[in-house]
Amino acid sequence: MKQNVVIVGAVALGPKAACRFKRLSPEATVTMIDQSDLISYGGCGIPYFVSGDVSDAGQLQSTSFHMLRDAKFFKNAKDIDVLTHVRAVSINRSRKELHVRHVINGKEQTLPYDRLVLATGSRPKRLPIPGVDLDGVFTLSDLGGAVAIKEVVAGGKVEKAVIIGGGAIGLEMAEALADLWGIETSVVEIADQILPGIVSPVVARMGQHQMEENGIAIYLKEEVRRLEGDGRVERVVTNQRTLEANLVIMAVGVSPNADLARDAGLDVSSAGAIVVNEKMQTSDPDIFAGGDCVEIMDLVTGKPASFPSGSLANRQGRVIGTNLADGNAAFEGAVGTFVIKLFDISVASAGLSLQKARSHGFDALSVFVVQFDRAHFYPEKELVYLELVVEKGTGRVLGVHGLGGMNSGLFARVSAVAAVLRYRPTTADISNLELPYAPPFSSAMDVLNALGNTAENTLRGKNRVIDADQFADWWMKREKGDTLFLDCRGWGNAEEFVKKYPRDWKSIPQDELTARMAEVPRDKRLVLICNTGVRSYEAQITLDQMGIHDAYNLQGGVAAIKKWGLDLLPSDVSNNG
Amino acid sequence: MKQNVVIVGAVALGPKAACRFKRLSPEATVTMIDQSDLISYGGCGIPYFVSGDVSDAGQLQSTSFHMLRDAKFFKNAKDIDVLTHVRAVSINRSRKELHVRHVINGKEQTLPYDRLVLATGSRPKRLPIPGVDLDGVFTLSDLGGAVAIKEVVAGGKVEKAVIIGGGAIGLEMAEALADLWGIETSVVEIADQILPGIVSPVVARMGQHQMEENGIAIYLKEEVRRLEGDGRVERVVTNQRTLEANLVIMAVGVSPNADLARDAGLDVSSAGAIVVNEKMQTSDPDIFAGGDCVEIMDLVTGKPASFPSGSLANRQGRVIGTNLADGNAAFEGAVGTFVIKLFDISVASAGLSLQKARSHGFDALSVFVVQFDRAHFYPEKELVYLELVVEKGTGRVLGVHGLGGMNSGLFARVSAVAAVLRYRPTTADISNLELPYAPPFSSAMDVLNALGNTAENTLRGKNRVIDADQFADWWMKREKGDTLFLDCRGWGNAEEFVKKYPRDWKSIPQDELTARMAEVPRDKRLVLICNTGVRSYEAQITLDQMGIHDAYNLQGGVAAIKKWGLDLLPSDVSNNG
Repeated sequence: MKQNVVIVGAVALGPKAACRFKRLSPEATVTMIDQSDLISYGGCGIPYFVSGDVSDAGQLQSTSFHMLRDAKFFKNAKDIDVLTHVRAVSINRSRKELHVRHVINGKEQTLPYDRLVLATGSRPKRLPIPGVDLDGVFTLSDLGGAVAIKEVVAGGKVEKAVIIGGGAIGLEMAEALADLWGIETSVVEIADQILPGIVSPVVARMGQHQMEENGIAIYLKEEVRRLEGDGRVERVVTNQRTLEANLVIMAVGVSPNADLARDAGLDVSSAGAIVVNEKMQTSDPDIFAGGDCVEIMDLVTGKPASFPSGSLANRQGRVIGTNLADGNAAFEGAVGTFVIKLFDISVASAGLSLQKARSHGFDALSVFVVQFDRAHFYPEKELVYLELVVEKGTGRVLGVHGLGGMNSGLFARVSAVAAVLRYRPTTADISNLELPYAPPFSSAMDVLNALGNTAENTLRGKNRVIDADQFADWWMKREKGDTLFLDCRGWGNAEEFVKKYPRDWKSIPQDELTARMAEVPRDKRLVLICNTGVRSYEAQITLDQMGIHDAYNLQGGVAAIKKWGLDLLPSDVSNNG
Repeated sequence: MKQNVVIVGAVALGPKAACRFKRLSPEATVTMIDQSDLISYGGCGIPYFVSGDVSDAGQLQSTSFHMLRDAKFFKNAKDIDVLTHVRAVSINRSRKELHVRHVINGKEQTLPYDRLVLATGSRPKRLPIPGVDLDGVFTLSDLGGAVAIKEVVAGGKVEKAVIIGGGAIGLEMAEALADLWGIETSVVEIADQILPGIVSPVVARMGQHQMEENGIAIYLKEEVRRLEGDGRVERVVTNQRTLEANLVIMAVGVSPNADLARDAGLDVSSAGAIVVNEKMQTSDPDIFAGGDCVEIMDLVTGKPASFPSGSLANRQGRVIGTNLADGNAAFEGAVGTFVIKLFDISVASAGLSLQKARSHGFDALSVFVVQFDRAHFYPEKELVYLELVVEKGTGRVLGVHGLGGMNSGLFARVSAVAAVLRYRPTTADISNLELPYAPPFSSAMDVLNALGNTAENTLRGKNRVIDADQFADWWMKREKGDTLFLDCRGWGNAEEFVKKYPRDWKSIPQDELTARMAEVPRDKRLVLICNTGVRSYEAQITLDQMGIHDAYNLQGGVAAIKKWGLDLLPSDVSNNG
């Protein structure tokens, strides 16, 4: 039987499902509708289009071999009919008909289907505040919106921009505006960190430091109250300050577009996403859905969740395409992965952050390790900053995230953990995780293995740690005199610190600690410090042996606090350049 | 009870086991012996020391914080006694004593132990041919040997070098000699490809092409018969030719050092490696062993195997250290991973190659995909060439390997598959493998996902493929006139090929194929060609629909045959520089 498939939405999942299905069932007919004529584009490329890295919007809409994926392409190369500027209005499930309206002329039309695919995506949230309708205020809803922003920016009239929201899209857009266009850009985030829910406060602080070093102003814990201007936006007013702005981009998250499904009586979750099974079927087995408009299984928490991602949408699209052709493909869920470029560094994550793990009821802790990506004797290398989130008791690994240079292999480490998270690895599995080893690529005991080892030691109480946030707090309060900062490195590294902070900073190299134990005060809290946290851990073991337990290993050592933005020797910086 | 542990071998596993154990049991005594005084070094860094990337041997022997890991360091920083220039002679298991001999003065000594660790490593094989004892003939046995090679090379007397063996160490040494020192270097390999047993012939051919482009001569299927010279080596004589050489390095594999264990009555495998359980205990529970001298479980084949690797040795060392302290750590095995830098490209693998899979009795096939590492619209990107080995019937993934630039993310893709191989993934798991996605790092449908998709299509007979080897064979025989090379790209790409090979090369762009079906000959075998294999796959489906089945998709397209070294438009190359 020649099947007739109709697909609503032609950005990511729709085209993928259509093409896969047609390859398996070339005799079938497929009609794909979209409310725009900009279809089948890489939405995640929008910040790079705005920045100018991608010179025109057509590139986002082209194949790797430079053919524009427009309606004509789908007809000729794929034998798929595309109706552009057409919106779905309603579904008549008993008659198996989709009612649509042509956006431009208002004409209505009925499309019969054997099977229907809903790829309706998501829409950006808009804050319910005064001024959101002023000119110059944008959300990043689609490629059309991005083209509009770029026109404004390229017009040269934008001197100051405010991004509302310090999540992934907000930060990417901030970099895009500031880096190439030289626009004075601020980010306002209501949470107490950037990338909330994705990375830990410490890693977020490191990313923020990076953004600030590149001229982006970041305001945390601030709520935008209103946007002001005369027709065109001029000011952003928060609960703390007023920021001038010729351009405002709201990037405060997305909501699934599930109205069409809800109105047709399909199951929709309390969070407003379409409910689907592993085959990506809705509660009506002849209607499939996928992408940003559905909930899928979170393979770490075991609960359904939204993972808006062009990448997952593509993979779900292929599963739908296979099943439309009566195949038996399954999309079992996602662990949640993330990566972002922030100027010349990268931040990536897989699975749950500590905060998110706790919000899901896990009794969890996290550990933090800093190590070179490659063999430490290999000339080209970069530090990787990695945090592992583990469940106490079971030692189950719940997530990983971190920060590194653009060639630091951070992406590789997070990808490897992402790949195994669904198999419920323990810290021992990370300790023994097998990465290919050669000095130009990795370490014999890779940073990922060291992370597993550190997590195990910490879970077993062998490693009492503090992070850079805690260090900064104790450091600021050092006037109280209850804490001694004990430098476990060689004198050459410690000297300047001791000279600048003679009361608070003491040098005993780790290999001299046993012999010089008498110098260690027993009436103070000790913070043990080395370059990255390895020697300070050894020192802690030696102190434990001598009955000194009020000692805390600074995770990631001096490398971590520097990256965090705490510079204890600021004169050094100016000396070095 | 204060435990007394003796460790034989102080390069990789020995020091790791010792340090881990001492951190867990600071009160214990540990004595580590080694026949050299060069201990605790990164052996995999030797090629980079010889090349000059690592300036002196001490760097390979230093911590990341630049402390030399010599006997004094182990005493002061770790409270571990190291006896250098001491060889183990025999084990008296009933008395729990190790008999040792001081290499320099011949003195014998008995070391009592509660538990013993054998970290005796491996030794390089030496070919049983005349001339192996000539001056200037080396194996890479240890850091001492590397120092000797570098002295010869730095002396400026070496004009021509021959490497015997085209495995990892042979190729790394070839690059080291040729790149920095400008030595005319040849590699002689007895197999019909470089990296035999690790990657497929096609990927090997691409790596070979890279080496040859960088001036290394590679002779395959040649057996070295003898080395000639008067005291000092002057010539290498193979069954095909005579090569002049002032320096010869034999890199033909390693054998485990298991004599000490065998003589003590411990279980040794037929392959000559010490047998251990998951706790890394030998058949005597008080004697542990690990690293190059043991066999561990191959988690893909389910059979014990040797995986000589400094990286695995380190992880096994930690497991032994934990168990010495009455912990309960396990080393479950390895899937086998590999990565190498060849000038400015990288080659990596995890699990089994097709040849190896078949030799283990798997009914397997492999598929090959070429795709950009990052979003194709992102300006900075590189092609990744990946091959997936899968079992027919089950669709189980047995291995992955490939080739890419140094920043192509090849390492990340192979690492992700390496991480999951032990969980017996199927092609569907690779199709849906979740890598973090953002345009500067990956594609929405990543090359790894495309690889899983292609494998599934090929297993189901939807994609009839040929590789670059097969293409080259048919191309060479094109005079027979039985094959038409059908270019599915746009005319702009195809034009030059059609003009140069009017009889054999025909252009029908994939999106015009249905309309121009009458032009397709039905009496010839068709080879379908595009840039990377995507459009040619679509064309194959269209041809299938029209009843034309004698058509084969060139996997990886023109990108693959170019990388392979087959240049069909050589004038182009000179035009481009």
